[in-house]
Amino acid sequence: MRIDLNADLGEGFGPWRMGDDAALLGVVTTANVACGFHAGDPAIMRSTVAAARERNVAVGAHPGYADLAGFGRRPMPGLSLRDIENLVAYQAGALAGICALEDHPMTHVKTHGALGNACADDDELALAVARGIRAVDSGLAFMVMPGTATERAAETLGLRPIREIYADRTYADSFNLTPRSEPDAMVHDSREALARVIDMVRGRRIVSTSGKSLDVGIDSICVHGDSPNALAMARMLREGLEAAGFVLGSSLAP
Amino acid sequence: MRIDLNADLGEGFGPWRMGDDAALLGVVTTANVACGFHAGDPAIMRSTVAAARERNVAVGAHPGYADLAGFGRRPMPGLSLRDIENLVAYQAGALAGICALEDHPMTHVKTHGALGNACADDDELALAVARGIRAVDSGLAFMVMPGTATERAAETLGLRPIREIYADRTYADSFNLTPRSEPDAMVHDSREALARVIDMVRGRRIVSTSGKSLDVGIDSICVHGDSPNALAMARMLREGLEAAGFVLGSSLAP
Amino acid sequence: MRIDLNADLGEGFGPWRMGDDAALLGVVTTANVACGFHAGDPAIMRSTVAAARERNVAVGAHPGYADLAGFGRRPMPGLSLRDIENLVAYQAGALAGICALEDHPMTHVKTHGALGNACADDDELALAVARGIRAVDSGLAFMVMPGTATERAAETLGLRPIREIYADRTYADSFNLTPRSEPDAMVHDSREALARVIDMVRGRRIVSTSGKSLDVGIDSICVHGDSPNALAMARMLREGLEAAGFVLGSSLAP
Amino acid sequence: MRIDLNADLGEGFGPWRMGDDAALLGVVTTANVACGFHAGDPAIMRSTVAAARERNVAVGAHPGYADLAGFGRRPMPGLSLRDIENLVAYQAGALAGICALEDHPMTHVKTHGALGNACADDDELALAVARGIRAVDSGLAFMVMPGTATERAAETLGLRPIREIYADRTYADSFNLTPRSEPDAMVHDSREALARVIDMVRGRRIVSTSGKSLDVGIDSICVHGDSPNALAMARMLREGLEAAGFVLGSSLAP
Repeated sequence: MRIDLNADLGEGFGPWRMGDDAALLGVVTTANVACGFHAGDPAIMRSTVAAARERNVAVGAHPGYADLAGFGRRPMPGLSLRDIENLVAYQAGALAGICALEDHPMTHVKTHGALGNACADDDELALAVARGIRAVDSGLAFMVMPGTATERAAETLGLRPIREIYADRTYADSFNLTPRSEPDAMVHDSREALARVIDMVRGRRIVSTSGKSLDVGIDSICVHGDSPNALAMARMLREGLEAAGFVLGSSLAP
Repeated sequence: MRIDLNADLGEGFGPWRMGDDAALLGVVTTANVACGFHAGDPAIMRSTVAAARERNVAVGAHPGYADLAGFGRRPMPGLSLRDIENLVAYQAGALAGICALEDHPMTHVKTHGALGNACADDDELALAVARGIRAVDSGLAFMVMPGTATERAAETLGLRPIREIYADRTYADSFNLTPRSEPDAMVHDSREALARVIDMVRGRRIVSTSGKSLDVGIDSICVHGDSPNALAMARMLREGLEAAGFVLGSSLAP
Repeated sequence: MRIDLNADLGEGFGPWRMGDDAALLGVVTTANVACGFHAGDPAIMRSTVAAARERNVAVGAHPGYADLAGFGRRPMPGLSLRDIENLVAYQAGALAGICALEDHPMTHVKTHGALGNACADDDELALAVARGIRAVDSGLAFMVMPGTATERAAETLGLRPIREIYADRTYADSFNLTPRSEPDAMVHDSREALARVIDMVRGRRIVSTSGKSLDVGIDSICVHGDSPNALAMARMLREGLEAAGFVLGSSLAP
Repeated sequence: MRIDLNADLGEGFGPWRMGDDAALLGVVTTANVACGFHAGDPAIMRSTVAAARERNVAVGAHPGYADLAGFGRRPMPGLSLRDIENLVAYQAGALAGICALEDHPMTHVKTHGALGNACADDDELALAVARGIRAVDSGLAFMVMPGTATERAAETLGLRPIREIYADRTYADSFNLTPRSEPDAMVHDSREALARVIDMVRGRRIVSTSGKSLDVGIDSICVHGDSPNALAMARMLREGLEAAGFVLGSSLAP
């Protein structure tokens, strides 16, 4: 059984860095690279793509709102659907340009932060994102949350989905993530996270905190790179998955 | 005889606009579109590309330094050659993404402002720009100033050149533009500009203010969009060129 | 009877300008100057303050959200009350620094765009703005909308209010402005605007579109600088007010 | 004998941090706070000032070029002297606003990075900085490098100087810092740095790498906060200075 481990990387800017990208690139099989709006600048994008290529890690665009100070985590309800198409196409196109400099293909797009949260619950927004992706390259995959508007948008527009679950987050009955403001939003214990992940991937289902269940295929597991124990949890997940018989690798690999 | 008229368009940001883009799109045959660093935002890029497509105007990327406050006209000597590759590939890629949303091809790249000035005199810099262009798409043309480092860089890397001259500017002996700070830098009179342009295109040569001459092919004439009489001069040039028997159109058109 | 005419000025950025500031400075008696977050940069702030001083126009800070691309008109619900205190104190402090270079006093603060709209309806937000103002200088006036949270905040914190009405906008029953999306939000006719203004100032009351009335003192009339006929309306208002016996001048003048 | 230890703090932006500010605030007696152009945002400025007040650390503005991506370390030769006045007054004014929210006085201004380097060698530039400082508050001190243009500018304009030396850097014959590109620019060994510092402060002189000597008063020692061993060196310096009989404290304290 094949499973992908993905993380958001290249989330620094100018002199600043976030997380231990070099170490995470030794663990994950897919990297979602910030594209300059919520984080990332051309130099960081370039070095992140170069390092991913060296480690044979797949690379996708991770577009977010133009809000460096808020790291793309603040809602921006004033944007139109056309604005969303534009910001996705602009950022994915920009990363495609950087990937071309390193001769490493861009495989997919995954939305960041507040944009991602908004998309999961809003079909019109998710479709606008998907139109932006499809315009840049109809062969790009759309990394989606199963059971939400993003998965439906990928299906509607004929984009190949990468269905991901989160190792360290719980699910609401909408199958969107439980908001971080809720007490049971996070899974802090690595063993528990591993057990949950293996149960979801093997059982081909997501279970909400209230017990609601959704049967889905799962292609990828997201690990976070910006929390203190992110690296330890990512390593633990990889080792645990391999011990359980999974082969780690991008779902898009031939 | 075919000749192209190009102008820099989409040089607004947010609520601000520069020049009368709509009117200029009825005159020129090629538009160089700002890509968000010195001017331009995704919404303005989108509407500029859409309007260019409607008028059958060719579109290229117009990358500049990341200096909105200085409109990309201030030198940034601290950038490395790798920084230059990155900013060209990022911005050209971003515009390619926006062009894809409008299903209008991106045909070429032309550098903006202080970046363009620096490139004309610096072979290493011009080659870095050319590498950025070639990475994004080796079929892209590089709009160059004949006799300068940009033309040499296009030739070295095998990029198709669009050799442009300026209607309202004079030339130094380096065949770079006379700096705007010099008294004879500008050609303000439309008739004189037209006569100069026809002389250069027909004679296949550029003549500096001191009388030094360079034999070159000329593919395009740049008109500026941001001066008060820009539109009037552009119209006068188009009419004068047509009256002189030229057919206006992009040099890249089939 | 004395009345103040105010307008938002200095709303350009880098190479871009908005409205005819020079002409408006010959009409209004108070200028609200953008401080770099939604518009304005240090150079434009400096020249705006210098021109205001020459015309004997009072100057205040016009802080907005950090959203240049959206001109501060897009809601930013993710900001905390502390963020609001900070952005007001930062921007008012910055303009105070620029005013000091021109030896022209900063007299007041007026919020811009989406921040202003949000403040009118939200007492906590308006109080956060007022705390930012008071910290910078407890002698600064707070330009408020009578009957809204901003007026209450000024009173609560002991800031001198400048109570303003809008010449070209109508009022909802909350005495906040009718949203621009409503059909009757704007008063386009200059004569009607003048009549309304004189009625409100003389009657010391604001009347909503549904006929609800609020008895208030009125210190200032806001004219907009960014619409095509802004200047004509401002001149018409000034002349009409003078013809009706009003003396134009800042309410803060000794 | 009294001596001040200063460090540049608050040099994060949005989600990013640089150096261990909390720990350094337990060691230094003066903090130079980034003001939003090369680093720092209103929230970080606020929390830095609040923490400095708690530790009884003096606070000054640390203005730099508007170049977040380059951290203010890239030359910007296109700025005019008026631009320099403006950026100093804007940033110092902004920090004064934030300081006011925390009721902690702003005591001084020290230029950052490429602006600082340029000032040391350029009397006109240093005078422009000094005019910006004096406008905001003629009681502000100007933290200067003895023997350079900054010290002369402070004297010319009557600003109180804080004459600082660098613990981990060597000096050129101009008494500007040896550029970081030179092999002997840095003093990496803490003991050597302490010995040098004590020699300079006691001897009231600076010695260049070639042996040229300048007799000066020294008020403060700059320790860097952004290198891996910055904190260890700062602590070592503080302990070593106290052991040598110095009393640590701001030169501006009453």
